[in-house]
This record gives sequence, structure tokens and C-alpha cells, in this order.
Amino acid sequence: MTEATGPKTSGKPIQIHDPSLRDGHHAVRHRLGADQLRAYARAADAARVPVVEVGHGNGLGASSLQVGLAKLNDDEMLSITREALTNSKLGVFLLPGWGTAQDIKNAIAHEVDLVRVGTHCTEATLAERHLGFLRDEGVEAHGVLLMSHMATPDQLAEECARLVGYGATGVGILDSAGHYLPPDVTERVRAIRAAVDVSVIFHGHNNLGMAVANSVAAADAGADILDACARGFGAGAGNTQLEVLVPVLERLGYRTGIDLYGLLDAADIAERELMPAPPTIDSLSVVSGLAGVFSGFKTRVLDISTRENVDPRDVFFELGRRQAVAGQEDLIMDVALALRGAGIGDKP
Amino acid sequence: MTEATGPKTSGKPIQIHDPSLRDGHHAVRHRLGADQLRAYARAADAARVPVVEVGHGNGLGASSLQVGLAKLNDDEMLSITREALTNSKLGVFLLPGWGTAQDIKNAIAHEVDLVRVGTHCTEATLAERHLGFLRDEGVEAHGVLLMSHMATPDQLAEECARLVGYGATGVGILDSAGHYLPPDVTERVRAIRAAVDVSVIFHGHNNLGMAVANSVAAADAGADILDACARGFGAGAGNTQLEVLVPVLERLGYRTGIDLYGLLDAADIAERELMPAPPTIDSLSVVSGLAGVFSGFKTRVLDISTRENVDPRDVFFELGRRQAVAGQEDLIMDVALALRGAGIGDKP
Repeated sequence: MTEATGPKTSGKPIQIHDPSLRDGHHAVRHRLGADQLRAYARAADAARVPVVEVGHGNGLGASSLQVGLAKLNDDEMLSITREALTNSKLGVFLLPGWGTAQDIKNAIAHEVDLVRVGTHCTEATLAERHLGFLRDEGVEAHGVLLMSHMATPDQLAEECARLVGYGATGVGILDSAGHYLPPDVTERVRAIRAAVDVSVIFHGHNNLGMAVANSVAAADAGADILDACARGFGAGAGNTQLEVLVPVLERLGYRTGIDLYGLLDAADIAERELMPAPPTIDSLSVVSGLAGVFSGFKTRVLDISTRENVDPRDVFFELGRRQAVAGQEDLIMDVALALRGAGIGDKP
Repeated sequence: MTEATGPKTSGKPIQIHDPSLRDGHHAVRHRLGADQLRAYARAADAARVPVVEVGHGNGLGASSLQVGLAKLNDDEMLSITREALTNSKLGVFLLPGWGTAQDIKNAIAHEVDLVRVGTHCTEATLAERHLGFLRDEGVEAHGVLLMSHMATPDQLAEECARLVGYGATGVGILDSAGHYLPPDVTERVRAIRAAVDVSVIFHGHNNLGMAVANSVAAADAGADILDACARGFGAGAGNTQLEVLVPVLERLGYRTGIDLYGLLDAADIAERELMPAPPTIDSLSVVSGLAGVFSGFKTRVLDISTRENVDPRDVFFELGRRQAVAGQEDLIMDVALALRGAGIGDKP
């Protein structure tokens, strides 16, 4: 019985969406095996986590030499997880271009309950066909906007309204670069909340140590669905830490319906069975978060910076100034050469 | 150039106080050696970190079989760090009872710039003699309140005013159990700010993933001095992460005077040279933070829980209900036996 914060809200329900077995794949080169998926899915199910999302880090159909070959194919991942879940919904993720309508049909054949379709924050139109197909099939569908810090609150609200028009029953934003501070989230979620009448989603990353605080800010601003992963399992600095977020929300008066001890057990299993070590915030994660650049650029930035004798931190900040987005890895070399030419990166 | 938060304050200066080489000692059984102290102190000094605090985790004079023998004695730690610092102030910490007036005299002989005196949150009177001595000697002195979530904002304001009366030129609170959420910090720092006309201090821990957000809340509520450690180096879930906090403060418009790249370099040195691994938030850290119990109880709670066949999480929550404070380790056994008697902890 302490004197600190007790409930402030009137028990508003928040739906937790757990992509540990999808986003976490980025931290282990997409190499989770059958026993790992089964162990975590069962534990999350026992803790009454509402949605367990599974798949290659880049979603359905994305396993490839270019972004990494998954250890299991989509069929294997879906059957194993489907079989492990008795309470939780089974979710999948899809980036149009990586995944196709055929991949969605296949996931539906595996009885997925929920499909998330993601696009760059200003490209919601790319999700139209997939979301329309899901609506026609009667499958619950979410539309989410990646790298959302690169758009204004008004733009995000407009893109989210578009996603609703295509059939999404949940829409929202991913802080893919881990760039937000709580006031940024408040402003954006409020704008989206005002523009749509479906569930609003927020998905955080921890580059600036703000993933839990940002998620609370999202809930306070009207978000209904929050993403979080066991121990923050995910690339770089990791995602919002699930077993931290849930009791913090409950303490603030939100209701998640999740069993705390079961959730802590699931997180212990995740730490022991899924990851070499829990994510921490290293110096380049701070820089990529500040710069607003996707942390997936890290390996390439380090390689090129070493070869061209420039400071990788300068490269990240310049990529941020140039508004680099995933897929524009060629920019890294341009930036390194420009910095070298300018002498900024020259070391003694 | 992103659309997210820019400066909101008018460039208010915040003084960063870095206890990596003191609080971090808790994470390595007080076993940092001469080369480690030197390497980190030089890097922090080069980054222009204003204050570098050094010593046994429990402060001056605390090295002992009971709480852990430091690898170096106070004289060695002070000479090495003093010699390494050219810009940064040299700080030390003292808990009356562990440290004595003689320890302070000795530290003054080593030309320390700043002495922090800590007491339990309702026991400021214990600091009177030490703070008075420092005032008479003309040495800058801070008074800080440990386990501060166990007192009300008004009580904390009153205790802080008392510390100012004794001679402290900086006063404030430690979130020793990592229990606060940002609104708790806002309320407490505001109350203290209104009660004193000296610098106000906040020192966070990360059990609930809120250390950075809490520190920002403290600054926004009028704190002048924020504590933070490289990579969060400290016991359990760790302290506020220094190289994350500083750029977040700068982005919000505060001025720290610290060089970002130098700070990131210092943090890299800390990760490589000082710690086996950066702190992460494990399940028991979440529980001790929620319960509001000092995480130093962990080993003893685990031992006793295993022996008595009760759930260590139940033990932590019950210790929180009984308002256990450091030094009351005997309560752990009482609680375990009570839980066992009540059958709560019985496993099948």
C-alpha cells in the first residue's frame, strides 16, 4: 500500500496485441523453430493475451534470401501456432509487395482470426485490395502505417480514414524508428481518434526509452489496441515490453483481461527459449531513434562507414535529414560519400 | 527533419549527475577495479558530464562483509577518479550509519567537490550532523530521500525543507524501488519545488520502464538535477539510462552542456569495460517495482521462497503491503511463513 498512483481511468478496456513471434523474428534472423513457437504461444494463451501474431518478421510471404529465410515456412508457423492457441486469437502481418493475396488465402485456410496489413505512412492506398478482400471474406482486418513519425498528425488521420474505407476495423500507427516522445503520440493518436470510428492501434519501439510511456500516452489519447512483445523481443532496442506495459496499464485503471503471473511466466519462457538476450538500448539505437531512421539500416551503415572512414552516427543523422525509408538502402552509400567529400567524417 | 517533437522549453539548464561508478557497483558486487574507474571517468569527463560520483554502492565507508567488500577502498577510488577528472566535479555518496564524519573528512582530503547524504524518506534528521559539517567546511552538499514513494508529496516537501535547513544546496528524491509512474513524480517534485529554493534532484530506476519518462516529468515539474547512469548501470532493472536521457532532454529544449558523441562513447566504454551485460527488466524487477520493494531483497526472497515453497511474487507483494524497507530483511521469512500458513504459496 504505497502513496503513489492509483487508477485514474474508469476501467477502459485495452486490447493487447502480441507480435513477439513475428516482430521478435527480426532479432533472430527469422530462425524461430517449432518448439519455440509452441512454447511461447501456449504460455501467452494461458495468460489470456488477446492476440498472438506469428510469422516472418516482414510478414506473410516475406521469407527470402534478401531479407532472411525463415526457419519455418508460413504453413508450418500457422499450423503450430493455431494448434497452440485455445483462447487467444491468431494474428498475421502482411506488407503488400512482400505478401500477396494468395498468402492471405492460405492464412485464412489456416483459420487465422486477424490479418494486419501495413504500408508506409503515406501509402495507405497500397492496402486497398488486400483489406477489401479480407472484408469480403469476413476476416477481421487491421491497417497500420509504418514509419509514422514521417507524416503529420493530419496526414496520418487521413490515411487511417482511408484504411477504414477499405474495410479495416482497426487502424493506427507504428513508431518503426522509435522516434516518438509521448507528446508526439498524444497528438497523433488524438487526430486519428477524431477521424475514425474503429479501434485505434499504437505500436512502439524503445530506442529512446519511451516505449511504455508512449503506449500509455496512446491509451490516454484514445487508442484501443496496444502492441507489445515479451521482454520487448524485437530488432535493435526492441518493442514495448509486454509484461511491463500490462501491469502499468492496470495500475492506471485500464483493463487488459490478462493474468499477470501467467504473463510474467510467458515472458520468462520467451527470455529463456526465444532470444539470445533481451533487447537493450545501445548507442546506435539511440542515434537511429533520434534521427528517425529504421534501425534495420544498422548493419549496412556500419559496413559502409568503416569502409569509407566516416562516423556511422553522422551517416544516421544525415539519412534522417534526407528522410530515408526502408528500401532506400542505396542512400547509405550516397550519404557516406557525401560526408567523406565534405571531410566531416575524416578521422585523424 | 521529422514532424515530431521539437523544443518546448526555453532552454532551461539541467545538471546531470552521473553515479555510474557508485550505483553501478550494486550490479557487480562492488568489484570495479582501477582501470575500469579510470576508463569511464576519463570518458565521462571528456563528454563534459557535470558530476561523476564514485564509491561503494552504499557509499563512503560501506564496504563490509555484510553488504559486500569493494575491490578498491575509498582512498583508492577517490584518488583514481580525482586524477581522471579535469572538467567534471567529483561526487561521493554517504548513508549515515554506514559512513561516518571521518569518512567525509577523508573524502574532503581527496578534494571531492560534492557530497550526497541519503536517508530513508522520513528520516531526514539523520542527515543533520553530516550536512552541518559539510556546510561548515564549505563543501557542496546534497540531501536525498530514499524509497521516496513511501511518503506523501507533503511529507517529502517537509523533509526536503529540513535538509535545506541543515545546509544542503540540492535536495530531492530517489525512486529506490522503481515504483513511480510519471504523474507520481510530477506531484512530488512540484511539492518539493514549492517548498525549497535550492536545486531539486530526481533519481530514477527502471523497473516499470519509466525511468526516462519519469526524469522528464521531474524536469517539467521543476527539477534542476537529474541522476542517470551509462546504459542504466545499476542493480536489477537499472537506473535511468544516461545517454538516452540526455538527447531526449535536449530534444525537448533543455540544455545539459554534454557532448552527445562523447557521451555515447562513454556509454560504449561502460558496456564493454564495466558490466557483464546492460541491465534489463526481468519479471521479478517488474514485481518488486509494482510492490514498491527495494530490489536488493531479491536474492534473499528467492532463497527463502524456494525453501518454504511459496511464490516469490507473492512474497514481494506482501512485503510491499507491509511497507518493508532496507534493513528489514527479517520480514521476508515472516512473510514466507505467513503465506505458507495461509496456503497461498502451496504448489501442487
